[in-house]
Amino acid sequence: MDVQELTRELKLKNNSKIVLVVSDGVGGVQETPDGQTELETASTPNLDELAKQNVCGLTIPILPGITPGSGPGHLSLFGYDPLKYAIGRGALEALGIDFDLGPKDVAIRGNFCTVDDDGAITDRRADRIPTETCVRLVEKLRAISIDDVELFVEPVRDYRFVVVLRGEGLEDNVADTDPQVVGAKVLEPVARTPGSKRTAEIAAHFAHQAKEILRDERPANMLTLRGFASRPLIPSMNEVYGLNSCAIAVYPMYRGLASLVGMDVVPSGSSIDDQVEALGRHWNSFDFFFFHFKYTDSAGEDGNFDEKVRRIEELDARIPAIAKLRPDVLIVTGDHSTPTKLRSHSWHPVPVLLAADTCRRDETTQFGESQCVRGGLGQFEAKYLLTLALAHAGRLQKYGA
Amino acid sequence: MDVQELTRELKLKNNSKIVLVVSDGVGGVQETPDGQTELETASTPNLDELAKQNVCGLTIPILPGITPGSGPGHLSLFGYDPLKYAIGRGALEALGIDFDLGPKDVAIRGNFCTVDDDGAITDRRADRIPTETCVRLVEKLRAISIDDVELFVEPVRDYRFVVVLRGEGLEDNVADTDPQVVGAKVLEPVARTPGSKRTAEIAAHFAHQAKEILRDERPANMLTLRGFASRPLIPSMNEVYGLNSCAIAVYPMYRGLASLVGMDVVPSGSSIDDQVEALGRHWNSFDFFFFHFKYTDSAGEDGNFDEKVRRIEELDARIPAIAKLRPDVLIVTGDHSTPTKLRSHSWHPVPVLLAADTCRRDETTQFGESQCVRGGLGQFEAKYLLTLALAHAGRLQKYGA
Repeated sequence: MDVQELTRELKLKNNSKIVLVVSDGVGGVQETPDGQTELETASTPNLDELAKQNVCGLTIPILPGITPGSGPGHLSLFGYDPLKYAIGRGALEALGIDFDLGPKDVAIRGNFCTVDDDGAITDRRADRIPTETCVRLVEKLRAISIDDVELFVEPVRDYRFVVVLRGEGLEDNVADTDPQVVGAKVLEPVARTPGSKRTAEIAAHFAHQAKEILRDERPANMLTLRGFASRPLIPSMNEVYGLNSCAIAVYPMYRGLASLVGMDVVPSGSSIDDQVEALGRHWNSFDFFFFHFKYTDSAGEDGNFDEKVRRIEELDARIPAIAKLRPDVLIVTGDHSTPTKLRSHSWHPVPVLLAADTCRRDETTQFGESQCVRGGLGQFEAKYLLTLALAHAGRLQKYGA
Repeated sequence: MDVQELTRELKLKNNSKIVLVVSDGVGGVQETPDGQTELETASTPNLDELAKQNVCGLTIPILPGITPGSGPGHLSLFGYDPLKYAIGRGALEALGIDFDLGPKDVAIRGNFCTVDDDGAITDRRADRIPTETCVRLVEKLRAISIDDVELFVEPVRDYRFVVVLRGEGLEDNVADTDPQVVGAKVLEPVARTPGSKRTAEIAAHFAHQAKEILRDERPANMLTLRGFASRPLIPSMNEVYGLNSCAIAVYPMYRGLASLVGMDVVPSGSSIDDQVEALGRHWNSFDFFFFHFKYTDSAGEDGNFDEKVRRIEELDARIPAIAKLRPDVLIVTGDHSTPTKLRSHSWHPVPVLLAADTCRRDETTQFGESQCVRGGLGQFEAKYLLTLALAHAGRLQKYGA
């Protein structure tokens, strides 16, 4: 049984506030035989104090051994079974630029690339053209028109953009046109199901017209289309939890993820201090706040241990300002681990700290992996975290008489 | 997959004895920053000694964050998936007064209440009339007669009673007639499914006749009907485990719950010493003994920390007498936590202690929440506890070749 069937039935309204701070990819791995993880190495007096007074544990993002992408990692944290709700990459990208993806839309992630005279790809990212160039090229692509379908082309960043097809009978099961290797030609879009045939045809028309338009550009003289995806049907957090929710995130993708579960995505500036400020500004208007901190993951992906430590300390320094708002439940965790040792997302369970007056204190004295192993919350699937948040906030009736 | 599908297939008979001591609501929460939980505060030399020699852990009654009522809390402990088997309040109440609820019955919980001259409720509990008054009024209500249905009206306690309708074609999906607020009129019973229409009509007849009968009574001049429920279909413990089971419980509800899973509910007196005595008396007649101790929950609901500590110590003092019978498996746990700090059932995992010659000893030296976090049984859903009991009692074959 999906735990959300229970929360729908048992949810209660009250005046409590819940803050979920997601330090992206915060979990780590020791790099040396005697070393500690990134989180354990960081000086985190504020998180440690919270850990000492409250309860910790480890979340398993999906299932043991399964490494999540950002989409499923966050859906779990929001309490949605990540194996039940799948979000295609194109949809995620479109939502990430605040594109209002509708039920008849198919979103596609586009990459500008460079091809030689024979059409073979020489650079899959067109020398990472600057965003200004991307904007200019996207403007040119908007001249493309195809019968019976509405087209939207939107720049994202650098060499990346989004195409959205809007029309009747468009399914999203179409293979990427990016061959993934330099030296190969851009592929034709191929439908993998009969219902996606029309989508593939429209994408092919689009790609051919785009090829003409970009012919004389350098380095971005071609494009690839990837991650064809419709907007997934996901019930809102209000529907399943009765939570009026708000997202305070800087990066487009996380803003998109939040909007997918019905959060209000508020202006959050560009720095963590802007985010803290936004949290305070919207404090009275929402029940639940998703606060996303990206840079622990970026440092992990870069394999930069010291930088990840520094970013964790940067977050720790803002904890008092968040705690000062007196949330009834304050949770600090990650959507997955990104150990600098692996330079990528990983499956390792993620430290979680839950601070609430209603918690059962455990013996954790430091917020780090080794201590979280023995934390009172145990190791549990991340999809239950939101149920725990609701419980600690007094927002669930009991089940059964 | 339901673990009971496995136990049905793998169960073995032997001469082992299993005792499940349920200290209702035993799990707790620290009340002060430096304090311990109720169980940790209590002096429990006998439980601690058992913990030291055996294995401990924590059970999650339903799912993380979900607080159970007594019904689902106990079903879990008996190994029944509490999300699969639901017990309606009326059925629970009827079973709790030893009413032999049959397959054609619908049980309804009745409350006497007070209404003013306009029929508006002024007291939903009729000034909590004493049980003697309840008995007298129920006697009067027994005069009610309705065609083609057999009626039973039984007092419970204070202002509460049970009505059972017995007849053909009675389904139980009928809304409560209690408007839940003072100042509103008692509602008509409304069927929520076509199959429950007849039940609603009979309930309406009953309520109208009752209104006439109670007209001149004060303060109990009216009644509300709640929790319409048929007896749920639950396979017996003998069927799923091959256990000949016995319940030693003082309070009606727990006796009712036990009878629902096919336990023999034996006379258990009114004190814990009576219960210990009953355990010894029936020792040779059963394989499994459910021993229910209510007062840890009552003290928790009252928010009385010291009383809960005292009750835990009261139970601890009887452990040697129980252990002296030499059960092959002795389990001590609760159906849920009832922290005095919250004054209610809660979702916090429940300490569990399993003593058996076949257990793998862990490092627990004291039976309390902090140590159970690190216990060898880990944190697990309570519905698996009975499988563990069977395993430790040598009552399960291996699965597969």
